[in-house]
Amino acid sequence: MDDTRFEASDLAEVGAVLREIDICMLVTRADGRLRGRPMSNNGAVEYDGDSWFFTLRDTPKVRELAADPRLELAYVATESGCWVSVEGRASIEDDADRKRALWVDDLERWFPQGPDDPEVVLIKASAERIHAWTGEGELLLEPGRPATRIPA
Amino acid sequence: MDDTRFEASDLAEVGAVLREIDICMLVTRADGRLRGRPMSNNGAVEYDGDSWFFTLRDTPKVRELAADPRLELAYVATESGCWVSVEGRASIEDDADRKRALWVDDLERWFPQGPDDPEVVLIKASAERIHAWTGEGELLLEPGRPATRIPA
Repeated sequence: MDDTRFEASDLAEVGAVLREIDICMLVTRADGRLRGRPMSNNGAVEYDGDSWFFTLRDTPKVRELAADPRLELAYVATESGCWVSVEGRASIEDDADRKRALWVDDLERWFPQGPDDPEVVLIKASAERIHAWTGEGELLLEPGRPATRIPA
Repeated sequence: MDDTRFEASDLAEVGAVLREIDICMLVTRADGRLRGRPMSNNGAVEYDGDSWFFTLRDTPKVRELAADPRLELAYVATESGCWVSVEGRASIEDDADRKRALWVDDLERWFPQGPDDPEVVLIKASAERIHAWTGEGELLLEPGRPATRIPA
């Protein structure tokens, strides 16, 4: 995403929450319906507004995102009182260097042939609006506006 | 929903998971984007494929559901290894008896005037497709098909 869209300090704050939660429900439009499935961020490092997910090229979610790239990443950690809604836009990336850089060994369970398998691709989800509810209160990041903070 | 759409025993199995998780992310389409926010089932009792959520009539989510009633309920309990995607269709209900029957005292925090406030309405989310991932494996309920089970 365009790094100027949100303040780096706001994104770092959101990133700390996302990293802790790790697994989100990635929601797409499937023939008009809204469909979610659990997906891991693989503990991705610095959050700059982009989330990356490994998948296979020939899967329903890749086809759904080709038809409508808008998605929701729903992060839930009720036991910590944290919820984050990341509204974004997806693109499918298969840059070999990127795949190797983001690869973690646990992924072999799902993709036994590793990051160089040409069928393995990345979903890049670029945040366009972020709403976080945490013990601190609410944080709303919208493009072109200052961050909104509502204390708990 | 039409009670004959899914088997009661399959719905009971899903309901046990939903009841435990309680808070989901309710995802709507908002001007084409997919938007989530945490919502509680209020520990609703027997699950028959319908989920009920209290809200106010004059809220973005009610307007979003009027424009497109299809929604996703994303249930996440990563610590228990459970995730459920409920794809459904919403209607807005304001039957006074139903509101009183579903009311729990905790809701006063959000709706201080109680269930008889005419601005308080219910979102009824009727499941059309359910995909659950649990320690037992996967359970997929689709209309007009037998349940699909994939053992863990």
